[in-house]
This record gives sequence, C-alpha cells and structure tokens, in this order.
Amino acid sequence: MTDIERQGLAAKKAATVLMTAGTQAKNAALFAIAQALEENEAQILAANDKDMALAKENGMKPALKDRLRLDAQRIRAMADGVREVAALRDPIGRVENMETRPSGIVIGRKTVPLGVIAIIYEARPNVTVDAAVLCLKAGNAVILRGGKEAFHSNNALTNIMRAAICEAGLPEDSVSLVQDTTRESVNAILSLTDCVDVLIPRGGAGLISHVIENAKVPVIQTGVGNCHVYVEKSADLDMAANIIYNAKCSRPSVCNAAETLLVDEGIAAAFLPKAKALLDQKNTQLRGCDKTKALLGESVVPATEEDYYTEFGDYILAVKVVSGLEEAIAHINKYGTGHSEAIVTENYSASQRFLSEIDAAAVYVNASTRFTDGGEFGLGAEIGISTQKMHARGPMGLEQLTTTKFIIYGSGQVR
Amino acid sequence: MTDIERQGLAAKKAATVLMTAGTQAKNAALFAIAQALEENEAQILAANDKDMALAKENGMKPALKDRLRLDAQRIRAMADGVREVAALRDPIGRVENMETRPSGIVIGRKTVPLGVIAIIYEARPNVTVDAAVLCLKAGNAVILRGGKEAFHSNNALTNIMRAAICEAGLPEDSVSLVQDTTRESVNAILSLTDCVDVLIPRGGAGLISHVIENAKVPVIQTGVGNCHVYVEKSADLDMAANIIYNAKCSRPSVCNAAETLLVDEGIAAAFLPKAKALLDQKNTQLRGCDKTKALLGESVVPATEEDYYTEFGDYILAVKVVSGLEEAIAHINKYGTGHSEAIVTENYSASQRFLSEIDAAAVYVNASTRFTDGGEFGLGAEIGISTQKMHARGPMGLEQLTTTKFIIYGSGQVR
Repeated sequence: MTDIERQGLAAKKAATVLMTAGTQAKNAALFAIAQALEENEAQILAANDKDMALAKENGMKPALKDRLRLDAQRIRAMADGVREVAALRDPIGRVENMETRPSGIVIGRKTVPLGVIAIIYEARPNVTVDAAVLCLKAGNAVILRGGKEAFHSNNALTNIMRAAICEAGLPEDSVSLVQDTTRESVNAILSLTDCVDVLIPRGGAGLISHVIENAKVPVIQTGVGNCHVYVEKSADLDMAANIIYNAKCSRPSVCNAAETLLVDEGIAAAFLPKAKALLDQKNTQLRGCDKTKALLGESVVPATEEDYYTEFGDYILAVKVVSGLEEAIAHINKYGTGHSEAIVTENYSASQRFLSEIDAAAVYVNASTRFTDGGEFGLGAEIGISTQKMHARGPMGLEQLTTTKFIIYGSGQVR
Repeated sequence: MTDIERQGLAAKKAATVLMTAGTQAKNAALFAIAQALEENEAQILAANDKDMALAKENGMKPALKDRLRLDAQRIRAMADGVREVAALRDPIGRVENMETRPSGIVIGRKTVPLGVIAIIYEARPNVTVDAAVLCLKAGNAVILRGGKEAFHSNNALTNIMRAAICEAGLPEDSVSLVQDTTRESVNAILSLTDCVDVLIPRGGAGLISHVIENAKVPVIQTGVGNCHVYVEKSADLDMAANIIYNAKCSRPSVCNAAETLLVDEGIAAAFLPKAKALLDQKNTQLRGCDKTKALLGESVVPATEEDYYTEFGDYILAVKVVSGLEEAIAHINKYGTGHSEAIVTENYSASQRFLSEIDAAAVYVNASTRFTDGGEFGLGAEIGISTQKMHARGPMGLEQLTTTKFIIYGSGQVR
C-alpha cells in the first residue's frame, strides 16, 4: 500500500466518525483550531519563512510571493475566518419533503456529509485552513494537496489543525496534508476511487484539464472564468462604463473579472470613449475588433480569435462591437467558460432573453460580474466556484459539500 | 471528425434550443411521440422481430429474450408511459431563494437543463423511450447508446421519436441513437467532453466500472445494489420474515433486491426457520455462516467472503448471524454498495442509529428494500438509481436531470 492509499483509508475512517458527529462537536473542533492558530503564530511564521526563502532563491514573482507570505495579521484573519465558519448553520441533518406515500411508507431526504473530499490547490497557504474547516463543518474528512511552494506553511498549519481537532475529541485524520508535492501525488489522488468521494481541483487551466483528463474519482471543476460584459444599445452608458471598469480593473487576477467587452454597434461610438477613459486609469490594454480600432484609434491592439478565448488575468480587455443581442449571446455561449456573464440594458425583453439564453453559472443584469462569490451571494463562505453543471454550479458553500440520503420509516410494508 | 463527434455536436445544438423551450412545446413533442409509437406499431414489431431472430440464432437466455421482446401491449404501455411523463410538472424554470443582498443585487437560483445527457444501456428497448422522454421533459438533448442485441428495435423507436419531435417543432437531434454498437463507441462517448454534460451508464458492474475507469465526461453511477436486511433482536419476527421474503424473492434480478440477511444472534434460532419456510417457497439457496448452518442444517451452503460482496440477482441469499447492531452496521458499510439497506426492529434507539450510521442512498426501518424506485418514492418516473454521492443519490427523477444557474438583477452595482 502506498502512503497516499494509507492516507486515503485513514481519511475514510475519520469520515465515518464525522458522519455522525453533532454540531457542537464539530464547532468545538473549529474553535480549537482558531485558538491553536493564534497560539502557534511563531511556529507558523517560522515555517512560512522557509517557504519565503525558497521563493526568493527560485526568483518567484512579487505577486505570487505576496500570496505566499503570512504575517501576524493574516494569521489572525485566518482564525477569524474559522470562527465565522463555526457560526454558520450546520448543513447536515436537515430532512426535506418528508411525506407518507400511498404504500404507507414515510419518506424524506436527509442531508448528510459527502464523506472524503480531496482538494488540490496552488500557492496560497490560507486555502489550507479555509478548505479544511469548511469540509469539517459539513462533516467531511479532507485530504489536502497543496503546492510545493507553500509546503512548509501548509504542513505547519495542518499539524496545528490536526492536534486541535484531536484535542477537541474528533479524529485527527479528519484533516491531512499530502506530503509528496510532485505530480505523482496528484495522479495518485485521481485514482483513489475507494476513498475519495469528491475531488475539487483549485488552480489554473492546466491543472484543471489534467485532472479532468485523468481522474477516476468524481470531480467538481472550478475557477476558470472567461467572463463578458455586454453593453446593449439601450444601456445607461455611465452605468455601463462603471460596470466594465469594475469588472475588469477591481481585481484582474480573479476568475470573476471580465475579459471581454461586447458593445452594441448602435452605441459604440458614444460608449467606447467613455469606457476607455476609465480603463485608461489602470493603463488597461484594449485588444479590439476593426470597428473598435476605428473608433478608439491606434492604441487598440488588434484582437485575435485566441484573445476572445483567453482569461487574461491582467489589465487586458478584449473588445468587440456586435450587431445586437443575438450576436452577443452567441459570442458568449461560444467563447465563455460558463462562469459569470453580464448585460447592461434598460430594455426589459433584452434583459429577460439574456438571463434565459446565456448558459453560465451566474447571469447578471446591470451589475458587475465581480459579485460572483459565496459571501456576496449569501452562501456564507465558499470553497470554490464550480463551472460544471453536475452537483454544484457557481459559488460552492457548505450546502454543496453535502449529499442526501432517503430515510424511510415503515411498519412492515412489502412491495 | 468522427460520426460520434458529429452526433455530439448535433445534440449540443439541439440542446441550445431545448434550453429555452417552454413546457407546452416540450409536452407537444411528448404527446406526438406517444401517438407516433402507437401508429407505427407494425414498424416497431418488424424491427423487434429482427432482434428476436438474431437472439434465437445466438442462443440468448429466455429471461433476456423476454426483456427484449416487444408486443402490442408493451408498445401501448410505452406510449402511456410517455403521456405520464408529459403530465408531470416541468422541473425547469423554478427560481428558488430569491433575495436582496446587502449590496442591493437581487439574486435567485433558477433550475435549468443540464444540456446533453448520454445514456449507455443494455438490452431492454423500452429504456430507449423512457430515457429519451425524461431527458426531453427536463429540456435536455439525449444521446442513446443501446446494446447491439436491441439495435433494430432501438433504431426504429428512435427514428419514430425523431420524426415526431420534428413534427412538433423541436429539433430532431434532441434524441439520437449511436449507430455503432461496438465497445469503441462507448469509449468515444466517454471522451466527448465538449458535448456531453452528464453520462449515465445503466448496466452491469462490468459496464459501470469500465465507464468509471475511462470516462473524461462527468458520470452518474447507477444500479449496482448489494442490499441487506438486518433483523435486530427486538424485531417482530413475522414482519421480518415477510420483509426478507419480499426483498429477496419478489424480483431477484433487480438492484433493490436483498442479497444478504443479517440476523441478531439472540433471535437467530427463532427467526431463521421462519424465514427459511418462506424462502423455500421459491427454492432460495441459502449461503450461510457456521451459526446459520448449525441452526438450519445441511441445506445451507457455506458462505464465502466473496458471497457477502456479491449481487446474486437470483434466488440466492447470503446469511450471517451477527452479535448485534454494531456488527450489522459495520458489515453493511463494508460489504454494501450504498444502495438500499433495511433494519427490522421494535427498538427506537436501534432504528435511529441504523438510519444515521448506515451510509447508503436509501435506509429503511421496517420496510422492504424493494421500495427504492422513483415511482414509489414520489419522484414520478426515474431514469436510474444513483449509487454515487455527487449530484444525485438514489432514484433519479426529473429534478436530477436539471442543474441551476444564479440569476442576478442589479441596478448598476459594482464591487
């Protein structure tokens, strides 16, 4: 048996205990984790220093180094986040649609934990804590496989969580970190069909597609977002300019940021200069179609077919002038990744058609795509944003970390 | 491009039309299908005759031949089934939990079709119609890949459905049958990640495990059922005997039939002869542990470890005497397939522990496992019984053929 198989079985065993753990027991473990993170700040920072030193050696980019870095404030924020999860309503044990059937059996559908959740993620060490406590709150054991850049930090955080969980009376194997950070360990997890109920990969398009190609365990795809804002001809142009500026520039690296602006040809001449004035504040590069170039001039880079498929994750925006609603919807359904799509319009029928015909996890009228987030949507906290249609779509909160079982009360019925 | 890729793209195109098709349009197509099935009885029977002739040539077993055979009555039953699906409530377009968030955006979760559903199934031709109309009612396009034994029947049924759908004004590619019945076509479907949103394999353990090993598209596992009945020491023994007799013998070939009887040692001597008397009516072979043999004598075949893992699908029942609730739960969670599990008991705490600690799609107190069925559970009709935890668990009705999208009404909000 390999180390990962052993770890899978240990997680599965822990999951059987968590399956029937009460809300108080789970919350006690979460509060113990929060306290332990604060009390072991020095140990966490020492481990993080090792990762930061290696990052420096390896010439890691400043933006990535910032994501990797922990400090006292960030550790306190992590602990506060754990307490917030503890305060959420327990998603387990609700029984829905209980009814008596003609046969006389009484049947309802009860929410129960999924079992063992594996999460493969990249550099940010706070994901280690966020993901673990969300899984735990929903009664699941979790196998964490973080990136090698954050290994020392992740390991310190995991060990602290395990000790706290154990002290609170739940199995320490409820949370565990894969010690091997090579590609082989990813592949080993993809084959753990006996132990892993769901795998959630969080990372770039390369990781996601590798997982989809090779996973034998059930997967929830997350995070790839090629989002659009379409400015329809009846739009309030100031509102539209604000929305595209916010959707592109408030945080270009995240998956709910906009990558392409579609503009109705009827208002392109009036709207594009207005939008450009705002986007210029962040030196946003525009990659436009011929009509866009004709209206905005030489600073616009010609857009390629490839650009319309690209999640830039940067101050770059593709722009296309379209003939109307029909073309906008067709463009989005062709090039989009089914994440978040917005129309800006004052036309009732256009808004309804957009909501109905766009095939995406979140479809907006007159608001920025940046709202696609578990907190903003009222789900409490989120473990990722699903871009697939099975099981969960859009931001995944605690409810998406559960499944159901039918419970049936009989009095001797046979069929 | 291969034939199957072409078929996948055609289905995807049809799915975009179905996505916004109204209830009346979908129901009109279903009624047209029902009528066309009845009007084309002769054509269906002629095609079925070809399959039956081949079945005879190939020496197909009588039970399988009976499943393959169509007659006027079965065709009428199919048509009636279609009309029943038409009468069900449309699962699409419900908006749940619509609320205004602190940011001012108004957000709700709307049920929408999954898109394209592929179904791989074995010999029974009625699945062709049942599966197609359930998918259609929920606004999905469906790619059917039936077994080669029923090819002529399936093809005739599919062509009749396609013509009827087209006549009713929806795309004929909403339903299509894979023409290649070799293993290669199964593998081709498993890789159709651009077109297939969900694959549902319906068949034996061999098909299911091949699909899980090799699928790149999302899969819902169905149908493998190693179900148990546990007779706890406080059980009403007559009720328990009736339940195990029904669970084993009413239809041994189906997935919700019981395969193992677990008996508390305190009542084994009183209960086992009672159960045997009923099971003997169908000449049920018992494969028992040593204690069972000691109580029931020589007719009991010694049970192997393998027997406890086996879905016999026949008049064969594994039997084990257990020390109590704890051992029964551990046995079921180890050997079961997470399908349907029953306890017979008059003890309140035992019933609650069983409901809570058994990890299965359907958990029963004092009723036969045979009730696990979409119709019996009140889901209207079913497309299969999921034994996985993601997306759907247990009988899958129309609701399990949908996904959701968040719809957001704003008034210029940015974040």
